[in-house]
Amino acid sequence: MILDGQATRSVRRTADGAGICILDQRQLPWEVRWVELRSARDAAVAIAEMWTRGAPMIGAVGAYGLAMALAEAADDAALDAAYAMLVETRPTAINLQWALDQVAAAVRPLAPVDRAGAALARADAICDEDVALCRSIGEHGLDLLRTLHAQHPGRPLNILTHCNAGWLATVDYGTATAPIYLAHDAGLPVHVWVDETRPRNQGALLTAFELKNHGVPHTLIADNAGGLLMARGQVDAVIVGTDRVAANGDVCNKIGTYLKALAAHDTAVPFYVALPYTTFDAATPSGDAITIEDRSPEELTRVTGATDHGLETVRLTQSPAYNPAFDVTPARLVTGYITERGVLDRLSTPA
Amino acid sequence: MILDGQATRSVRRTADGAGICILDQRQLPWEVRWVELRSARDAAVAIAEMWTRGAPMIGAVGAYGLAMALAEAADDAALDAAYAMLVETRPTAINLQWALDQVAAAVRPLAPVDRAGAALARADAICDEDVALCRSIGEHGLDLLRTLHAQHPGRPLNILTHCNAGWLATVDYGTATAPIYLAHDAGLPVHVWVDETRPRNQGALLTAFELKNHGVPHTLIADNAGGLLMARGQVDAVIVGTDRVAANGDVCNKIGTYLKALAAHDTAVPFYVALPYTTFDAATPSGDAITIEDRSPEELTRVTGATDHGLETVRLTQSPAYNPAFDVTPARLVTGYITERGVLDRLSTPA
Repeated sequence: MILDGQATRSVRRTADGAGICILDQRQLPWEVRWVELRSARDAAVAIAEMWTRGAPMIGAVGAYGLAMALAEAADDAALDAAYAMLVETRPTAINLQWALDQVAAAVRPLAPVDRAGAALARADAICDEDVALCRSIGEHGLDLLRTLHAQHPGRPLNILTHCNAGWLATVDYGTATAPIYLAHDAGLPVHVWVDETRPRNQGALLTAFELKNHGVPHTLIADNAGGLLMARGQVDAVIVGTDRVAANGDVCNKIGTYLKALAAHDTAVPFYVALPYTTFDAATPSGDAITIEDRSPEELTRVTGATDHGLETVRLTQSPAYNPAFDVTPARLVTGYITERGVLDRLSTPA
Repeated sequence: MILDGQATRSVRRTADGAGICILDQRQLPWEVRWVELRSARDAAVAIAEMWTRGAPMIGAVGAYGLAMALAEAADDAALDAAYAMLVETRPTAINLQWALDQVAAAVRPLAPVDRAGAALARADAICDEDVALCRSIGEHGLDLLRTLHAQHPGRPLNILTHCNAGWLATVDYGTATAPIYLAHDAGLPVHVWVDETRPRNQGALLTAFELKNHGVPHTLIADNAGGLLMARGQVDAVIVGTDRVAANGDVCNKIGTYLKALAAHDTAVPFYVALPYTTFDAATPSGDAITIEDRSPEELTRVTGATDHGLETVRLTQSPAYNPAFDVTPARLVTGYITERGVLDRLSTPA
């Protein structure tokens, strides 16, 4: 990832090695602020309060959180308590649970005195694996974009994305954005339609910020606009991320993804979901079994943005509001799943 | 319509009879401000700058605008110039053109000295006809809601609407909202899911304001949320308005309508379009022939809302934006057209 012209990662160890630094995404794009997390509780707050978000990034921060807990107390009861606190911060995020399980499984056989170091090492490895994995997703997606571009030569390839499944949501590259960054770097002309992604505006605030820092041409649109653009032939592919994919291929992702998938299907635009293979959840038979997280109505009724005198929050309504955070896109609407194992057109139960 | 507990209309003649009063919708819901329009140019600005909007309301204001022009100069050249200025304020609004044609046809055979008075009378009649027409749309829609409620007894009927096709968009009752108001008044329990309707937030600002004033239970949702609610069975019907319906039944309405129609179709939720029969445009063969209005990107990149120190505008992004204002819902996705002539399941060319 490129931030202010520098290559970096979204999460990195502090200089003393005992904590981690992450970007506080709540101030983006207006202020680039790195924050230090130095305890499991810090990590839990950062995840629950959405200082950071995105399935792989939450997994990485959760893994470091568990490691930081074990640096304070490393017996089985402490391990179990920290695991329980961290796993409950975002109930929809299967990757958080996966990362916590990885760390817990690595340390449980060890004597308590050895657990903190082993947990940190496992968390570091999760980060390195995530970077390699996202790059691999990007490479498989790049092949796909090259093929699409060959069908539409002589003009930029138009890709629509929803929410932020970029490097802010992973350790590097992103998932949905990895093919875009690799394509741009390879000289393939790409232009991205960025869904605003109400109510939290992750597209307007985060994805647009990423693409701007990387120099990728992009245009913000209202979530409402994608259907028209697809019907007019102004979208060559939709690529989104996901928080969880059920065993039958149903995709749980940011609220509004289902509507874009319907429009893509109706207009014969390919609809891709980019994800680490760990996001497949064999234990969830279909989307119906996924609990949808309801979030605060104030995320919808209040909007924060920049003014000449700093950030300001304005109220949009005097009426009650309801704010479900995710929806389920049925597998029948998905053209393919871009994973580190290749582009799959259909799911098999994860190995 | 009920505003601050009083029955009124959205447009009315000034006390001296020479101008009109309308609600300046730009301050709603925070401030109820009536403004006087006293010239054709005032009317054109009010339409173009969206002090007022909605197909029937724009038609009424346009008709009065033409009448006010004729009060200043009533020869054919003045008539043609005022017509041209007014018709260009909102290219998508077929009802504006219809109303202007009505007034022009009524006055053209007359001597210039008689034209202003006849034009005002015709504009008054257009308003009275609109009230009767919206009430009739409401009565036909009420029959339909009674039938739906009989299928789901013992709980409120959940209706989703997009944008504002309420009394702020008409002289009274609204189009999409007329069945809702009549149902509520008749004691049928209704609850309305109000789409925020980015980028101008007409749902959050206007429809929610109307429903609150009328006492109808309602909940604001992000435009992204409707698909999930429909998939979960939490929506019994979608009712929207329209700016123009092509001869084949394709519906031009606020950007995002198409996405809701796709979701309704995918989940077997009935999708209704409420409209005066004049909104059918026999001269437009299909939606492909409709020019979509692009509006300022700043409508998307800036949001105005309330703070403790008054209204404030905040910026949402540092990136470029694109803001098409309408989309086209193919006729195949429409369950029925609720008109003053009844609920039609298919279009015939208007008589």
